[in-house]
Amino acid sequence: MNNKKQYYIGIDIGGTNMKAGLFDGEKIIADFLLGTPKDNFDHFMIMLNALIEPLIKKAKEDKIKINSIGAGVAGVINSTGKQVLNSPNIPIINNRNIVNELEKISGLPVIIDNDVNCFVRAETILGATQKYKNIYGIIIGTGIGGGWWLNGENYKGVHNGGGEPGEMIIDFNSGIKLEEAYHKLTQNNPSLLAEEAYRGDILAEKSYEEVGSFIGIAIANIINIIDPEVIVLGGGVMASSDLFLSKIKKSMREYIISSEIKKNIKILKSKLGKNAGIIGAALLSKKS
Amino acid sequence: MNNKKQYYIGIDIGGTNMKAGLFDGEKIIADFLLGTPKDNFDHFMIMLNALIEPLIKKAKEDKIKINSIGAGVAGVINSTGKQVLNSPNIPIINNRNIVNELEKISGLPVIIDNDVNCFVRAETILGATQKYKNIYGIIIGTGIGGGWWLNGENYKGVHNGGGEPGEMIIDFNSGIKLEEAYHKLTQNNPSLLAEEAYRGDILAEKSYEEVGSFIGIAIANIINIIDPEVIVLGGGVMASSDLFLSKIKKSMREYIISSEIKKNIKILKSKLGKNAGIIGAALLSKKS
Repeated sequence: MNNKKQYYIGIDIGGTNMKAGLFDGEKIIADFLLGTPKDNFDHFMIMLNALIEPLIKKAKEDKIKINSIGAGVAGVINSTGKQVLNSPNIPIINNRNIVNELEKISGLPVIIDNDVNCFVRAETILGATQKYKNIYGIIIGTGIGGGWWLNGENYKGVHNGGGEPGEMIIDFNSGIKLEEAYHKLTQNNPSLLAEEAYRGDILAEKSYEEVGSFIGIAIANIINIIDPEVIVLGGGVMASSDLFLSKIKKSMREYIISSEIKKNIKILKSKLGKNAGIIGAALLSKKS
Repeated sequence: MNNKKQYYIGIDIGGTNMKAGLFDGEKIIADFLLGTPKDNFDHFMIMLNALIEPLIKKAKEDKIKINSIGAGVAGVINSTGKQVLNSPNIPIINNRNIVNELEKISGLPVIIDNDVNCFVRAETILGATQKYKNIYGIIIGTGIGGGWWLNGENYKGVHNGGGEPGEMIIDFNSGIKLEEAYHKLTQNNPSLLAEEAYRGDILAEKSYEEVGSFIGIAIANIINIIDPEVIVLGGGVMASSDLFLSKIKKSMREYIISSEIKKNIKILKSKLGKNAGIIGAALLSKKS
């Protein structure tokens, strides 16, 4: 054991799974995964406890002192950074003070953030976008989330409420949102649909192409407003990115208005993969 | 004549009119307006010269030394700040080096910027949004433009190309843009349509309500990404804002995802009105 190292727990609370890892400042040295409970908040906290308990136990056995916990949550966090205002895919945690609950069960200081903020932080500090300064991150998973890294930090907006591409209205007449269209196209089960597409199901392939096209237009809409250097894509569904990434790029370029941006903008895939969320959450806790 | 005062020419080049004013650091002391030529670039430059010549003449008569010229242009400016990459409503100036041409005819240093950047600069330094730090400005005129003021300066993006709400795709299936829908709904003549609405034409009223609804959703899409403190609205069509402003507010609030933003976000009208553009352009030139 290296005494100079500092240790943190990073938690990634997504719409399908939640993951926790023990982070030594550079890498994850142990991690666990559980399905995200959807029935009620008490059950949710019990499972969250079950997720971090073995990490705390391992730390004790290895005589490691854990400094703090950082958690990334798929949803809008309030401006005090303690409460989940709106989690479209985990509504049982809406308006809940996850920070206090987690501090109670762990005995450690806890800080939370939006999950895509954690993702883009991890990729920028240790992953795919280390050499950039203006980075928009998008997670394609249970839902579609976004987060922006600007000049060395997460851009938080005035009310800690920006970065929600999934909420973008994609048809101003019907009022349908990108995430609603995504759920419908992937029939709420992107991995099953991907399996079908890989087996040669033409309708499944077409659905994924439409997903790519829609996400590409949404990215163009974002680029035409904030003009970033690079887009970084992550999330579980990126495992099937060969089904839709070329469509994303094509639609995106079609709708970018500035010829300079069109020429220079980059789209990168996550380098940290499944651990990006927990690393970003641990880095948040490390920083604070 | 006060010798301590510094003088600048501000020019506002819009899709319908272009205006120039002599600015004494606090207010416009003389100004002229002309229709924007649409036939060719030579004619455009002749008229631009005709616009600033009487101001330069007046300055000479009054023994005023003009320091420099700032011009706001309805379009995307390249990252060197010299060339208009894309002006959807004045295509004859696309890829033209307006700075060199203006310096040649005026003998003064010239700097250009996007017109909505100039608008939001003017409103924030001398107008409606003086007490705010994170301000998104929208101009509703010949087209729909946007500009963002963040922490004491115009947010420029990486390629000087952000802030283009008019380019937002409002129907991901058809690929139609907000500005295209706006042109169609207002039949390319917003002021004539406003007259009809004021005379009681129900179809004209409905068209303006739909304009308001679409702009409101577009603002919500922007707010869900950048989470500003305040939206400031300007442009010639705001003279008829009673036909659509309540619709803008209603649609905007309906689609903002964060309850905190929904509660706190403000929409303000321009305080500097028709002079906002030339004041903002003059302030640009003053600063540089």
